[in-house]
This record gives sequence, C-alpha cells and structure tokens, in this order.
Amino acid sequence: MKVVFIGSGNLATQLALAFKAKGVFISQIYSRTSSNAKLLANQLGAKFTSRLSEIEKDADIYIYAVKDNAFHNIIKEINLPNALHIHTAGSIPLNDFEGFAKNYGVFYPLQTFSKKKEVDFSQIPVFIEGSDLEVQNKLFELAQLLTQEIYIINSEQRKQLHLAAVFACNFTNYMYDIASEIILSAGLNFDVLKPLIAETANKIKTMTPRDAQTGPAVRYDENTINNHLLLLNKNKDQKSIYKLLSKNIYKTHNSE
Amino acid sequence: MKVVFIGSGNLATQLALAFKAKGVFISQIYSRTSSNAKLLANQLGAKFTSRLSEIEKDADIYIYAVKDNAFHNIIKEINLPNALHIHTAGSIPLNDFEGFAKNYGVFYPLQTFSKKKEVDFSQIPVFIEGSDLEVQNKLFELAQLLTQEIYIINSEQRKQLHLAAVFACNFTNYMYDIASEIILSAGLNFDVLKPLIAETANKIKTMTPRDAQTGPAVRYDENTINNHLLLLNKNKDQKSIYKLLSKNIYKTHNSE
Repeated sequence: MKVVFIGSGNLATQLALAFKAKGVFISQIYSRTSSNAKLLANQLGAKFTSRLSEIEKDADIYIYAVKDNAFHNIIKEINLPNALHIHTAGSIPLNDFEGFAKNYGVFYPLQTFSKKKEVDFSQIPVFIEGSDLEVQNKLFELAQLLTQEIYIINSEQRKQLHLAAVFACNFTNYMYDIASEIILSAGLNFDVLKPLIAETANKIKTMTPRDAQTGPAVRYDENTINNHLLLLNKNKDQKSIYKLLSKNIYKTHNSE
Repeated sequence: MKVVFIGSGNLATQLALAFKAKGVFISQIYSRTSSNAKLLANQLGAKFTSRLSEIEKDADIYIYAVKDNAFHNIIKEINLPNALHIHTAGSIPLNDFEGFAKNYGVFYPLQTFSKKKEVDFSQIPVFIEGSDLEVQNKLFELAQLLTQEIYIINSEQRKQLHLAAVFACNFTNYMYDIASEIILSAGLNFDVLKPLIAETANKIKTMTPRDAQTGPAVRYDENTINNHLLLLNKNKDQKSIYKLLSKNIYKTHNSE
C-alpha cells in the first residue's frame, strides 16, 4: 500500500507520523510550499513536491489534509479517478468528491493538532464515511491502525461534530486568551490560572457541563456582574462577550 | 486555634475538609440551611447551627464561604470585633469588613469546587490580603498548610483575577455545554468530545492561548463559518455567540 499525503500542516504532520509509525508506506508529500513539504517528508523518509503535476500517479491512497479551498482546487486537478481519495476535514461533505474520483471517503480525527506536539492517536476518536461499503471497510482498517474509537457517520453529522468542536476547542481556547489578557493586565502571571483551567476541563469527565456550571451568571448575581462589567469598560469587545455569555448562561439555567 | 466556618457550600466543604486534614480544629459550621450545616459538620466531627445567634463567640478565626449577599448580612450581625475574620470570595473587597471587625483578611483559593469532588489543594494558588501585616502573616501560615502557591495581592487585583476566572472557568464550561447540546442533537455522545477538550486545556500548559488558537475564525474562513451559521439557524442564541466570538477571534489575530 502506497500513500501520498496532500498537505503538510498540523494534521497532515501528526497523521502521517502516526501512520508511518504503524508501518504504512508514505511515498510522497505534496505542499504548495516546498519548504513545508520537505520538512515533513524528511521526518518520514518520503519524497516531496510543491507541484501538482509532480504528484505520483501510482499511489493506492491519496490523503488530503489541506484547507477547504485548497482541497476543492486540488481534487479538480489531480485526475486519478481509480485511486482511493480520502479527506480529513470536518467541514467538507463526502459528495464534494463526486465527479473527481470513483472511490473516496472521509477520515476525520477529532482533535486539535500542532506540528510540534505529538498526540496519542489511541485516545482520539476517528469518524469515517465511505463512498461505498468496500471503501468504508478500508477506512475502518486504516483507522484501526491508530485507535479503537471509530465511528461511522454521515456528512450531516460530521458538520454538526465540526461545529461542536469549534465551541469545545476554538472558542474555549479564546476564553483562555481573554482570561490571559485580563490576568496580565492585573500584573499577575497566566500560570496562576492553569490549575483552574485544568480542573474545569477535568470536571466534565464525570459531570455534564450543565451540572458543572458555576459562576455569577447562573443566578445572575447582579452585584458581581455589574462590577465585572465596570472593569470591562476599557475593552468593549470583551464586555459584549461577557454580557452575551452571562445572559445565555442565566437563560439556560433558569428555563428548565 | 479554634475555627468556625460560615457556610457549607462547595468551597466551604473542600476548604474545611482540607484544613481539618492538616490538623486545624474546626469547631462549628453555620449555614442558613440546617441540613447542609449538619452534612458538613458530620464530615468534620464539628458542631453546627442554622442560627446566627448560636454561632460560637470564642473562636479565634471565622471563615466566611457564603454568597456575597449573605456575607454582607452576616458580617453586620455577628459582632465579634476581636476575632480574626476571613472571607474567601474573589469578588468582595477587603474594606467591606470595615466597621465590623478589627482584624480581617481575604483567603481566595483560585479553583472551581464541588461538594463531592475532592481537590488537591497543593495544586491550587491561594491569594491573600490582610488588614495589617500581622494578619497577612497569619493568612500566609494558614495558606502554607495547604499549598506553596501563595500570592499577596490587593483587592483591585483580586477583582481582575475573579473576572479572569469567569472567562477561564465559567464561560469555558458554557462552551462545553453548547458543544454538548450540538453533539447530542447530531445523535452522537458527548464522550467523543472529551479528548478534544482535554487536549485544548493541555495545550496551554506549553503554549500561550494566542499561539494555540486554531479554527475557521482565525482567518475568517467564510465558507465554513457560513455553513456553521446555517446549522445554527435553529438556535439564535448559539448563533449570536458563534458570530460574536468568531468576529473577535478574527480581530485579535489580524490586528497585531
């Protein structure tokens, strides 16, 4: 089995490294940026190219881990209808392959990846969808190399999953970012918030987030909330966020 | 040293249990709700009361871990000016004790507490402030029983700290809650998000939240964002939150 990776970003890097560690033969890395392609290829002992025309034509599987726009451009150009084409995006429906490939599927690992931070794939759920049962089985086998947490879902569910991940990861991280700004402006170090952040994430392993909710907004403690809004007068954006989230937390906990 | 706890909620419970484990003599628990006072008192081998008039008058230290309104009411009534009075709230300034006590201070452990989930206080930063140096030293000694992470800050800093904690904990947990709603509506289990939530919290141990930010909002990927907004048409509140946070993430990452 010969695999070509289209992409060399965070997900491409971690996924290619994980497959390689399980003995998958990764032959080539394509990236628009040659230096990025080379960096990943060197870690894998693979070839690399930054030209679409130079992508190897005889691979069994092409794995796309690129931005959505890039995916749509590349799949139109690549013209290898008989290979298996797999994308890794939460946001791209399966049928975006239609007309460009015969065998295709989605392999979506639900995690946040960085190039330099190795992840333990055995802890990561992978969501697959295939153009037919044979492809689905192939995707299942691939996923089993990395994890036991494998789910077969359709494109509609994957869209929702991706949306949920934006809240659980991207927006959550943005809350950390705002907290960091506030703490630094008080002359304190972001480190003092780390045990709180860890415990907040830890709590929902054993309680629902609904049950774990605490803070002034739950009962709309006006005194505290008004004090916080006063402090936020110097940052209108943070003030709008504080207001909107507090209003909605209150609503959630007082309409049940 | 004889201690009376005013309050029997999440923080009162964990703090009283932690002090007791370090050999502090907790004589009595007061709570407006007798059954709550009893529940905690039984775990501590302490007495309990639900009447302000029955609070023991000869304790050395009174520790207040009650809601802000309750604190203000009780400190006016308690009339024991010579004891040491300590509150544990992020949101109450030190000088709210003025006129009601001679020796007073703040002992603010920055963590989210539940009655039933034991916490490791050695991992928790405690922020102290005393009415004079003698009280400050006393608070420092008390804090040292539980942790090495002790910070002396003023009431203004503590306000900011509390505000930062609302973002880092309460609002973060609300992001988990929304993610949970979305995932359940897609027919999937909240469990599939847990590795992502854990890794998102884990990442900021070694990167700043600013550097760790990912997702469609960073570069305002309109295609994905518009798809998500379409999915959120059935929930206008979640849609407003998605829009506001995405706009601000974009702004943060494109104005530097």
